[in-house]
Amino acid sequence: RYLPFCKLPGRVMGIRLLRFTSVVIIVLLLVAGALTALLPSIKDDKMPNLRREQKTQSQSALDSFTLIMQTYNRTDLLLKLLNHYQAIPHLHKVIVVWNNIGEKIPEEMWNSLGPHPVPVVFKLQTVNRMRNRLQNFPELETKAVLMMDDDTLVSAHDLAFAFSVWQQFPEQIVGFVPRKHISTPSGVYSYGSFELQNPGFGNGDQYSMVLIGAAFFHSGYLEHFQRQPEAVYALIDETQNCDDIAMNFLVAKHTGKPSGVFVKPVDIRNLEKDTNSGYSGMWHRAEHLLQRSYCVNKLVNIYDGMPLKYSNIMISQFGFPNYANHKNKM
Amino acid sequence: RYLPFCKLPGRVMGIRLLRFTSVVIIVLLLVAGALTALLPSIKDDKMPNLRREQKTQSQSALDSFTLIMQTYNRTDLLLKLLNHYQAIPHLHKVIVVWNNIGEKIPEEMWNSLGPHPVPVVFKLQTVNRMRNRLQNFPELETKAVLMMDDDTLVSAHDLAFAFSVWQQFPEQIVGFVPRKHISTPSGVYSYGSFELQNPGFGNGDQYSMVLIGAAFFHSGYLEHFQRQPEAVYALIDETQNCDDIAMNFLVAKHTGKPSGVFVKPVDIRNLEKDTNSGYSGMWHRAEHLLQRSYCVNKLVNIYDGMPLKYSNIMISQFGFPNYANHKNKM
Repeated sequence: RYLPFCKLPGRVMGIRLLRFTSVVIIVLLLVAGALTALLPSIKDDKMPNLRREQKTQSQSALDSFTLIMQTYNRTDLLLKLLNHYQAIPHLHKVIVVWNNIGEKIPEEMWNSLGPHPVPVVFKLQTVNRMRNRLQNFPELETKAVLMMDDDTLVSAHDLAFAFSVWQQFPEQIVGFVPRKHISTPSGVYSYGSFELQNPGFGNGDQYSMVLIGAAFFHSGYLEHFQRQPEAVYALIDETQNCDDIAMNFLVAKHTGKPSGVFVKPVDIRNLEKDTNSGYSGMWHRAEHLLQRSYCVNKLVNIYDGMPLKYSNIMISQFGFPNYANHKNKM
Repeated sequence: RYLPFCKLPGRVMGIRLLRFTSVVIIVLLLVAGALTALLPSIKDDKMPNLRREQKTQSQSALDSFTLIMQTYNRTDLLLKLLNHYQAIPHLHKVIVVWNNIGEKIPEEMWNSLGPHPVPVVFKLQTVNRMRNRLQNFPELETKAVLMMDDDTLVSAHDLAFAFSVWQQFPEQIVGFVPRKHISTPSGVYSYGSFELQNPGFGNGDQYSMVLIGAAFFHSGYLEHFQRQPEAVYALIDETQNCDDIAMNFLVAKHTGKPSGVFVKPVDIRNLEKDTNSGYSGMWHRAEHLLQRSYCVNKLVNIYDGMPLKYSNIMISQFGFPNYANHKNKM
């Protein structure tokens, strides 16, 4: 038979239960009300805010880049260059890869000369390795990386333009130093610059690599670099060289396109001679170029094929520095 | 009860049926055999052949371009230019848009001076219209169109390079003559070249159009052009001008990108002064440039907005003509 709630045995118990259930109901209503009150505010207030914050962050992440500069035995040049690079438009942060093992970073001096336009992070390394700069640094927040050698100065104009070009070719290494490999009849590859014979595809020269010591590339490639065959790391460590060639192999393999896009710099300078350290850089070693040819052939073995592709596209900035730099006789 | 086939009434009838069914079975087996015999041959022989033919045709369609050259009152220049352009690498066919109404095409002379490297088709027009060259010609077989004015000579080197660039930017107009529009505080647009003020986006100049009188573009845009608002055709006919500006609006609207990619020509020549006809081309009319500003504003009305986008990318050929044209002081 149907027993209505209020007809539970015992009047006292009935009233108690009634009170209890009323309390429960009221509590539930309050909770519901609270939730309802919260919901619109999340939608109307917090969502837009969240969107705005995300948008600012993501705009920042898309519209700015992180400079990664590895340094060894040229702190005077580093500091000179930091004063220049810290003020480049669209720079988000600087990561200095400190290969001066055991030496203190100039953090005190850096801070005493603040404030600085952007955060600069000094990453102390434990071993002096060329490939230290190719770590997937957790401080990296931007999609784009600008990698510079610690003896290279590129003008802000060049960098601003090259960054805008990278944004149109985000899959590729957009930079200022083109190099190429050539095939020889023996099947052995050789590495070189423009003084080396043209690969022979029509008129003019071709390049198949853009060096990462003065270039923009997608930060995702640093993560990608961590997943390469051990033999690649061994090669770079053995030669203390060729990390840039390896990167070009990686990018070419990944995209199926030429790994790089060459932007002709207006103002690029090598400050090597200006250092007080007397240290003159790896590329002065006698075996440097031979090593790089060696690396090309080793990498072809490791990757089981030659993924590098040729390009002859040279990009310059329309109407800059000369507003009529595209003028023709017509 | 079960009655086996062979127990049909009448031995004579039985034998006849037996023969009949045997014949049917044999015929069916023959047909089946024939089909089986045909099947592999379609797969093994014809398919690869078909693929090879298709591949040749499609390779041809993708790896070559059609030159469309409109001509009016400058047949001497046309013939001079045809001798040059007929031999450009990767040229598939020439379509001459004959705006000399009522005048015979020089077909006899052309044939008498054969053979020619590629087919040349003369399309007689009924009315002398600037937009005649923007028809979707049935003779067009390639994906790429090279459109040239009948007084413009561009070197084979430039064309070969620009064609290879177009293949990397097939959605855009890849050519040798950049122009721009600028906004003014009144909201009225103006048209011009580099002597006009820069649009003011950072350093240097920008272009927002690439003229089609010396450019590569996708043949699909000709078909697309047939589907524009009537007002566009009216505007072009009214001014006998601006078909190229209209094309840039079309491409920009379609891609959401800058309509063109500028390739800096090494050797581009205007042969106007060389004509015996005395005819010196539309751009000498006093109102020519004013008309073009007028057209920009009209097109913004027609398309209900300004679709043109700026670019400052200038492309040159790496290592050509000077094998060290990318050398820097570093």
